[in-house]
Amino acid sequence: MNTLPDIKTQFPEWYNQVIYKAELVDESPVRGSYVICPYGWSIWEHIKSYLDERIKITGHKNASFPLFIPESFLNKEAAHVEGFSPELAVVTYAGGKKLEEPLIVRPTSETIIHHMFARWIKSYRDLPLKINQWANVVRWELRPRPFLRTTEFFWQEGHTAHETYEQAQEEAELMMQEYVAMAHTILAIPVITGTKSEQEKFPGAIKTLTFEGVMQDGKALQMGTSHLLSQSFAHVFNMQFQDHTGAQAYPHLTSWGATSRLVGAVIMVHGDQKGLVLPPAIAPIQVVIIPITRKDTDTAKLKEYISTIEQRLTSKSIRTHIDDAEHKSPGAKFYEWELKGVPIRLEIGPRDMQNNSVTFATRIESEKHTTSANAIETFIGEKLQYIQEQMLTIAQEKRQALWHQAEKLNVFGPILAEQNGIYQTGWCQRPECEMKLKEYKATTRCVLSEKTHTQCFACDRPSISDVIVGKAY
Amino acid sequence: MNTLPDIKTQFPEWYNQVIYKAELVDESPVRGSYVICPYGWSIWEHIKSYLDERIKITGHKNASFPLFIPESFLNKEAAHVEGFSPELAVVTYAGGKKLEEPLIVRPTSETIIHHMFARWIKSYRDLPLKINQWANVVRWELRPRPFLRTTEFFWQEGHTAHETYEQAQEEAELMMQEYVAMAHTILAIPVITGTKSEQEKFPGAIKTLTFEGVMQDGKALQMGTSHLLSQSFAHVFNMQFQDHTGAQAYPHLTSWGATSRLVGAVIMVHGDQKGLVLPPAIAPIQVVIIPITRKDTDTAKLKEYISTIEQRLTSKSIRTHIDDAEHKSPGAKFYEWELKGVPIRLEIGPRDMQNNSVTFATRIESEKHTTSANAIETFIGEKLQYIQEQMLTIAQEKRQALWHQAEKLNVFGPILAEQNGIYQTGWCQRPECEMKLKEYKATTRCVLSEKTHTQCFACDRPSISDVIVGKAY
Repeated sequence: MNTLPDIKTQFPEWYNQVIYKAELVDESPVRGSYVICPYGWSIWEHIKSYLDERIKITGHKNASFPLFIPESFLNKEAAHVEGFSPELAVVTYAGGKKLEEPLIVRPTSETIIHHMFARWIKSYRDLPLKINQWANVVRWELRPRPFLRTTEFFWQEGHTAHETYEQAQEEAELMMQEYVAMAHTILAIPVITGTKSEQEKFPGAIKTLTFEGVMQDGKALQMGTSHLLSQSFAHVFNMQFQDHTGAQAYPHLTSWGATSRLVGAVIMVHGDQKGLVLPPAIAPIQVVIIPITRKDTDTAKLKEYISTIEQRLTSKSIRTHIDDAEHKSPGAKFYEWELKGVPIRLEIGPRDMQNNSVTFATRIESEKHTTSANAIETFIGEKLQYIQEQMLTIAQEKRQALWHQAEKLNVFGPILAEQNGIYQTGWCQRPECEMKLKEYKATTRCVLSEKTHTQCFACDRPSISDVIVGKAY
Repeated sequence: MNTLPDIKTQFPEWYNQVIYKAELVDESPVRGSYVICPYGWSIWEHIKSYLDERIKITGHKNASFPLFIPESFLNKEAAHVEGFSPELAVVTYAGGKKLEEPLIVRPTSETIIHHMFARWIKSYRDLPLKINQWANVVRWELRPRPFLRTTEFFWQEGHTAHETYEQAQEEAELMMQEYVAMAHTILAIPVITGTKSEQEKFPGAIKTLTFEGVMQDGKALQMGTSHLLSQSFAHVFNMQFQDHTGAQAYPHLTSWGATSRLVGAVIMVHGDQKGLVLPPAIAPIQVVIIPITRKDTDTAKLKEYISTIEQRLTSKSIRTHIDDAEHKSPGAKFYEWELKGVPIRLEIGPRDMQNNSVTFATRIESEKHTTSANAIETFIGEKLQYIQEQMLTIAQEKRQALWHQAEKLNVFGPILAEQNGIYQTGWCQRPECEMKLKEYKATTRCVLSEKTHTQCFACDRPSISDVIVGKAY
């Protein structure tokens, strides 16, 4: 029977238990770091594989920069080091000796990559320079939560240099569009995009674009960001090039990243009382086959029948797993694979074999149906496609119910504090007003380009544009 | 003109220059760590992609374990910590505070993975447990050399647990076979396999299998290893399970890894005076197209013709690059792509367009030929296959010339000290004799299963089996 905490009233406990029970992660002996188990890592690999292909198609090249960053590099950009210093892990001894200069385990690689960019960019012919890195990074977390906020996490970090401000802006926006497409296409998560406030933006950036997901408990999750760094880092690292006119100029920079936190988003957007619900595009197993036997079943024959069906599915690259463990009952298997969020379950017993059929249930609808085993690969392929699309629709509906229009903080603040939820409201864009959200444990999540609310949520000044306000992970 | 040092007489200088000139790596501000540039990283990505698929096909699952390892973990296995202690990088500060227990940046993950295995393995039903991790690891190097010996490097580390010694041995041997197949199939490098001597084996292992390549300068390179750890680590980490009889037992373990050093092997086995020579299977660019224009060329039409050919090649997944930079001469381009080791160069000019043909040269044969543009994708596909096979044959011949049969160290030692080379000889397997190799800066590289030499290379005792002796990177 299901022993997960109530997803409606105990969401954090539900999350904490489901990730362990579904074998996504395990605790590690290093505080704030987690072991990502094969089932969890496979989800990340599928996200990575999709995103890596898109990053390459859009003209970026992968490279690798050192894990360690000399302490002096981080100190070069004042806002940058200030933003990261409480989170740093520092290597002070190596090779049996105290190091002359401590090395920082990278919390992000802007500084070391910009140091290299300064060597590589000599002429306008070297631009645009478009580099990406898949890496592990470390930020010392006081309150770690698996996938969402961990000391070591995994990401891609894109770093680009351009001749003009416009080109850099275009790049930052293009990659944000790619992230949104990824969220919709493979994660089945509808997101809200906009810019971060001055307070919430990346240390050292002049503009941060963000995409935010709304979790089932009504909290927002920042799922990834794209930064227009423009010329500040270029000045700091003395990155100069000869432009088309022959003059020396500073390039305009961007950086953008998405992390293993996306796995957390998928869990929190789609999960239900029975456990995970995984979008087919990133599910480690898309179809699980459970043999149903009785005492008089010809098991050798059934095995052969099941094997034929498996082969037809895998011939269409459908990720299929046969759970033929003999020490578990079919019921226990149903429970386990529901908990693990497998999109489609096939049950195949003697009657199916006789009728050349299979019995199936989808994770999102759960009623059992029977279908012919002829062209089963086409049928399941289409079903997976349907589930993928349906999951986005369901997630959109859930988000809609949590997304409120609001005018004044003193009205919506207390409700937000009590119930969570996302509030779209007007803002004068002054930090004083933003500060007032603290009382309700909320922050500005992103500034929209729309302007439907005329007045600031906190003061009587006119709104400059709408802003999304909410509590965040 | 070629400005690389003479590959025959100045091999180390040749290596040091070619990797920078071909844009595989760049220096970094962190001692012993290198930036791996897109062209170099792409070679590694191709190796990784092949190997990852094979690791999965042979039944292993990827997971992720923390970068940091508590200091106390490494101390648990005496031989293990002794083997690694001078190479460790230690985090002593994090989150603005001195840590109570220092954290080691992983030099390898046996200890932390075995700690987890002890949690996961309860019954024989949990075995075999077959896990792999793609990771960066750190070993503080006094004399770093890009790809070959670097402070931070990249690898996969497989870790498995089995019920019996035989199963663990079978696993260690299976993965060694996979490595050999990889070396032959995609790296085009013939390797020598055998076991490491007691002196040279992995700290904590009871047996280390190795595959060694012979570089053009006659030195050996250890390209990867597979360790039979058996039960020592299992005892240390109290890894017990209920076996088929209901009794408590300790599993038998293996670990095996191959690293970014393989890129160095490819450079040193195949390179020539003009630069890199890359096997098609791992070449970032398999075909470079260089447009040849004269004053009166209809460049728009030529561009279209070239684009058709490119499309035909990419339709067969042939990695093709058009070098249409206008500020470089065709000659400069030939030189550059030869230096970078691209397997096939196509030159396409007005005459080719007129004759519906292309002019081509391969990196390994270099004479120019002309062929019809009809079915160019099939022609080039077969050519790439031919080059891949031919490169293995050439490498085998080179290795043959460097591989000597020898009897007594006092005869072959002085020649080896002078000229390098690999010497197959007899050995009594006593460390005293092995020690005598030091005088000639040589070591035992691997113990073979053959026995063709009857006497030990150093003493008068009978040989137990043949051993490969040489100088190593």
